[in-house]
Amino acid sequence: MNQDYIIPNDWSIIEEGFNPEMVKSSESLFSIGNGAMGQRANFEENYTGSTFQGSYIGGVYYPDKTRVGWWKNGYPEYFAKVLNAPNWIGINVQINDENLDLHTCKEVSKFKRELNMKEGWLSRSFEAVLQNGVKINVETKRFLSLELDEVGAIKYAVTPLNSDAKITFSPYLDAGITNEDTNWDDQFWDVLEVTQNNQQSFIKARTMKTHFYTCTFMESRLFLDGNEVITGCNNEKTANYVSCNYQQETKKNQTFTIHKFGGYVVDRDHNKDELVKVAKDVLDKAVSFGFYALLETQKQSWAQIWKMSDITIEGDVKAQQGIRFNIFHLNQTYLGTDSTLNIGPKGFTGEKYGGSTYWDTEAYCIPFYMATKDQSVARKLLEYRYNHLEKAIENAEKLGFKNGAALYPMVTMNGEECHNEWEITFEEIHRNGAIAFAIFNYHRFTNDYSYIPEKGLEVLIGIARFWHQRATFSTNKDKFMILGVTGPNEYENNINNNWYTNYIAKWCINYALKNIELVKTDHISDYIRIKEKVYFTDDELIGWKKVADNMYFPYSEEHNVFLQQDGFLDKELITVADLDKSQRPINQKWSWDRILRSPYIKQADTLQGFYMFEDDFSTEELERHFDFYEPFTVHESSLSPCVHSIQAAKLDRMEQAYTFYLRTSRLDLDDYNHEVEEGLHITSMAGTWMSIVEGFGGMRVLNNTLTFAPKIPKGWQTYSFKVNFRNQIITVSVSQNGTVFEIDGNNELNILVNGEKVTVSPNNLQTV
Amino acid sequence: MNQDYIIPNDWSIIEEGFNPEMVKSSESLFSIGNGAMGQRANFEENYTGSTFQGSYIGGVYYPDKTRVGWWKNGYPEYFAKVLNAPNWIGINVQINDENLDLHTCKEVSKFKRELNMKEGWLSRSFEAVLQNGVKINVETKRFLSLELDEVGAIKYAVTPLNSDAKITFSPYLDAGITNEDTNWDDQFWDVLEVTQNNQQSFIKARTMKTHFYTCTFMESRLFLDGNEVITGCNNEKTANYVSCNYQQETKKNQTFTIHKFGGYVVDRDHNKDELVKVAKDVLDKAVSFGFYALLETQKQSWAQIWKMSDITIEGDVKAQQGIRFNIFHLNQTYLGTDSTLNIGPKGFTGEKYGGSTYWDTEAYCIPFYMATKDQSVARKLLEYRYNHLEKAIENAEKLGFKNGAALYPMVTMNGEECHNEWEITFEEIHRNGAIAFAIFNYHRFTNDYSYIPEKGLEVLIGIARFWHQRATFSTNKDKFMILGVTGPNEYENNINNNWYTNYIAKWCINYALKNIELVKTDHISDYIRIKEKVYFTDDELIGWKKVADNMYFPYSEEHNVFLQQDGFLDKELITVADLDKSQRPINQKWSWDRILRSPYIKQADTLQGFYMFEDDFSTEELERHFDFYEPFTVHESSLSPCVHSIQAAKLDRMEQAYTFYLRTSRLDLDDYNHEVEEGLHITSMAGTWMSIVEGFGGMRVLNNTLTFAPKIPKGWQTYSFKVNFRNQIITVSVSQNGTVFEIDGNNELNILVNGEKVTVSPNNLQTV
Repeated sequence: MNQDYIIPNDWSIIEEGFNPEMVKSSESLFSIGNGAMGQRANFEENYTGSTFQGSYIGGVYYPDKTRVGWWKNGYPEYFAKVLNAPNWIGINVQINDENLDLHTCKEVSKFKRELNMKEGWLSRSFEAVLQNGVKINVETKRFLSLELDEVGAIKYAVTPLNSDAKITFSPYLDAGITNEDTNWDDQFWDVLEVTQNNQQSFIKARTMKTHFYTCTFMESRLFLDGNEVITGCNNEKTANYVSCNYQQETKKNQTFTIHKFGGYVVDRDHNKDELVKVAKDVLDKAVSFGFYALLETQKQSWAQIWKMSDITIEGDVKAQQGIRFNIFHLNQTYLGTDSTLNIGPKGFTGEKYGGSTYWDTEAYCIPFYMATKDQSVARKLLEYRYNHLEKAIENAEKLGFKNGAALYPMVTMNGEECHNEWEITFEEIHRNGAIAFAIFNYHRFTNDYSYIPEKGLEVLIGIARFWHQRATFSTNKDKFMILGVTGPNEYENNINNNWYTNYIAKWCINYALKNIELVKTDHISDYIRIKEKVYFTDDELIGWKKVADNMYFPYSEEHNVFLQQDGFLDKELITVADLDKSQRPINQKWSWDRILRSPYIKQADTLQGFYMFEDDFSTEELERHFDFYEPFTVHESSLSPCVHSIQAAKLDRMEQAYTFYLRTSRLDLDDYNHEVEEGLHITSMAGTWMSIVEGFGGMRVLNNTLTFAPKIPKGWQTYSFKVNFRNQIITVSVSQNGTVFEIDGNNELNILVNGEKVTVSPNNLQTV
Repeated sequence: MNQDYIIPNDWSIIEEGFNPEMVKSSESLFSIGNGAMGQRANFEENYTGSTFQGSYIGGVYYPDKTRVGWWKNGYPEYFAKVLNAPNWIGINVQINDENLDLHTCKEVSKFKRELNMKEGWLSRSFEAVLQNGVKINVETKRFLSLELDEVGAIKYAVTPLNSDAKITFSPYLDAGITNEDTNWDDQFWDVLEVTQNNQQSFIKARTMKTHFYTCTFMESRLFLDGNEVITGCNNEKTANYVSCNYQQETKKNQTFTIHKFGGYVVDRDHNKDELVKVAKDVLDKAVSFGFYALLETQKQSWAQIWKMSDITIEGDVKAQQGIRFNIFHLNQTYLGTDSTLNIGPKGFTGEKYGGSTYWDTEAYCIPFYMATKDQSVARKLLEYRYNHLEKAIENAEKLGFKNGAALYPMVTMNGEECHNEWEITFEEIHRNGAIAFAIFNYHRFTNDYSYIPEKGLEVLIGIARFWHQRATFSTNKDKFMILGVTGPNEYENNINNNWYTNYIAKWCINYALKNIELVKTDHISDYIRIKEKVYFTDDELIGWKKVADNMYFPYSEEHNVFLQQDGFLDKELITVADLDKSQRPINQKWSWDRILRSPYIKQADTLQGFYMFEDDFSTEELERHFDFYEPFTVHESSLSPCVHSIQAAKLDRMEQAYTFYLRTSRLDLDDYNHEVEEGLHITSMAGTWMSIVEGFGGMRVLNNTLTFAPKIPKGWQTYSFKVNFRNQIITVSVSQNGTVFEIDGNNELNILVNGEKVTVSPNNLQTV
């Protein structure tokens, strides 16, 4: 692994000592967010060293229309960029008129950062000697409020240690920002209005092209040794920048502190013409609370979240830190409060994967949110796709499909495809399967069938139509094939008969057919409504079934395994163990053609199918396929280790399961893939949760019954997790000596533990 | 076909009547060039209708660094753009202070354009009534001098027909131009100096990033009814524009004429600090010749070109016009005078295919230049690649190859790859084969073996090393395979075992091995020099041979044909004849994934191999493959019909051969592919030449003997072509009654005609 500088701790991410080379990595790791907005852990004061500045607002993006010469028919008009938003955290600090800048200080010592995950705040402290010889101590703390999700607060305290000093704080708003990933330092924001009003400042700005209106705001309070001081404020204003300057003659060992409140209001939530007024109200409210009261609320909000979603591990502090880091960031990214938002692969921690929503949501995130929140949150995620069905149909039409066939976008902000690599946009179509699977998964877990007649069935029909039309009949093999696809393993492009894709296509058709029957039987008025709306005939359904019943699956008699795709065995089958380490990670060392012709697998592909459709295969079949494919898997996708961890646990290979667990849970903390500078891998963090709950805990739902097959890695004393199963909260605590089940509420719950029925009663510990 | 407005004529391209919708097409078709520069047939006077402005200088390009989010390792740093150069042809015309603009005139009549291919000039004439009621006659003529290849000349004459009128000519230079294909109206030129000096104007400018220095220049002479008049000249100058204004009160039916001389000098030929001085000398020389003398020289230069390269056809004026149009544009694009230049697919007629050199040069153009010019021209084209060998080795290194393996770029300006689509840049590697094949072809035709020990062998070794390393050993099939390629048929990407690629790879290795032996035997000092330079061992050569001897070729027992690639038979094999016409051309109607999973073939692929390696296969084998693949071929590449025409002729299917001939020779004139607006298909024009000489004439070289198998399409009375075979010029005239051979010079030439030996004596017609 790449780095090992994060100090193991149960509840906090801690860095000690200032290392300029780690600044960008730490900016990612210490990111904070509250579902509505988020920001990298950039310093408040000016920093001239290497840094990646980023502050992001949920749902605010930019349509980049850069055209390339080899444009292809059906490409979307743009690809979406996550937009760096105006900076409101900035506080320039001067000591006797010299800028505080950790890059140019004579000396920096006692540097410490802490991301306190239990309470939801980020702090930093250090001592520095400036070029002018003044030595100071700095203590900062900041958080983005969960309670008031348009607001963040910063406390920044400076104490001169070796002399008196004039200290200047210049808190500012800056809308003159760009993106890291821009081609030509393009500007993406039009600044409409920069205003100041007493201590309050506002910048109203609009994104170019997409025309999202925002107002960024700030207000500060100043304290000397804890007593509020109103020092004179010199304002500075340019076309896209505003600052206030507060000066204070400070005695040696006195502490001058600023409390800065800031944030964004956006026109998704408010009338765009009233944003400045709304911002003012928000500021007034935040300031009237004050920093400490807001912080207290923050602690309470996070306590609520942890109460349900925490996983404890005793006996392995790195594993404990890893899982909490994952759960914490998932909750920072998405809280299920806004049905237009979703879970971007990098959350609010970077720009890469410009779009917001990938199949990651359905395949990885929904199980986490379904089990640790009210089931309405998972339903909201399903509805996100229902609301985009029309656009998915339009998207399919652009590719020549008809009659209501739907192809959900690979990457989207608002339902439109916003990615343009042909082998992904047009061919990584298995994503459509995950969207149908999520509906099945939701129903399996919650038993809430109402979603299907109300909304889900239309989605299932659109998807089934797509697969039906996408299949090719091969006279040669007398089977239906799916040609020219990219499977979950993106290290293969434009392949034929990807087993996973063919399998999920067949499954989608059968699941749609089954639900058409169920809705017809049990929800006749919905059936009539839907049939009128999307119109299908028996003949059409017979056509679907023909495709599902005659799907081709490549198979090797020699190895007794399904083949990832046609021709897989023609490759030079050198396992990863035998591949020179200097060649790894291959996605940074090899050109694309070399990757494509190699046998190496980026993330679970055939095994992804064995994960999702586990019940269709025996353990022996799983073992055979795991033994065949895992040795070729380089796990260079963050989504890879979790699935393998779950399967290794099922196969009783706990050592291997534990290795994969560490890799998924500490992927970013330990920077396995050498890219944490760019941001965190948010969606795969849900996979980490799965590898404990589904992997070690062996949790499944079988025939409406919650089942477990608990195992525990060597060295762990206990681990414990909670699951909200159909509004009953069950706590599972696994130790080397057995498993304890506990249930909240008034009703008993029957579960299966290692195949045996167990009844868990409220207020009683059941030990197995 | 799309358009039919070009008037059939033996020697000219003629358009009659003004149709604004055809302006962009005509701008392409009537383009002029002289090997060093070229321009679209834009109007001299201002035109506010739809137009595509273009003037291009050989070898002057721009490295576009637009990065896309999905950058891949090994991509070149830039892709090259052909650059629109400063405009020197512009002459604003005012009649009584009203701008002449065909888009806004009250009436335009008697509009005629003519591109006289025999003499190498473009003319235009029309009558127009302006909004102010003045009716004028306009006559223009312009050409780019072959003799002074930095200069062009324009004659522009205006005659008021219904009243006296004040006529103003404002010839100008304009460096404030952009490209059609730019993303954001980027500027690509830095203007360094705008100067005027008496009647002469100069703009010195430098391309951004590449820093090509150019000077664009002009000088004019004015005539009233043929007598020179010096009217006062008002100069106008801005930062990137300069014009002179000449006013003349002109009586009704008097003619006011301007002769404008202009052009470019570039720092490839001159010291960059002296460009303005050089331009002045060039202008002085051109003006001292005067328009008419320069025109006379132009006619003589073209007469020389036609003397050798003309093909006459009697009895089919459209066919005659087509072949001359092709030969004319090839000679406008490349004359073999500058070894740093090459033949861009659009020549000087448009921007698309930004780069200059593709495999088109080796596979299509070399045969034409080899047979119609001194053999030094073809050798110069081979040397172009020899000079780029080091960069081809660097290019291969970027993709992980080693030990001197060379991968020539798909597209290049200076030897570096300058294209970035992974499936092309990294995978359309068959281009490497064409470069080796051209060496073989040159030797076969010229018998000049000296090129191989001097230069060619190093290229052959670099290419053989590439194929050796690129092959994958498949344990499964116990054969070497080439996985993950794009063949000549670019409607398949990332396929395995493209038969053409595998075949040419094997051939390249064997040809390199053979020449290593030959050079060792006959050119021992070259052998020693080369071996020291590129170092190879017997073991290495044994490794090559093992790959060549054990290459895998996909084959269908059922159809008794080699398969274009693995899995071809799994497609839905609906022939083009059965494909709904509304779906054509598929590259404009279908998304890329649909194209890829279809069986449709863009251009000869397996058949390209049967064309290049014809001698390796029987006519029956050719017929079987032609009958299997042609029905799936959509010929949406300009390079497609010619190969099929040659093969149809060989198979005695003269009607089909003729159809393909028309399609290749009139591809642009009749705009088969609906894209002539973007420019002409220059490189495929050499294919047109081949389809007469190799197709109808059946010309080959077999065992050092020139052979023919003449055939003639129904309806043609005769056709005749010349070939420069080893410095003997043979004229072949085919009529329905037989073929006449004639030879220049003093020596007899033995040829084979339909397999029979014929001796052709100088000054005697041999009739067969």
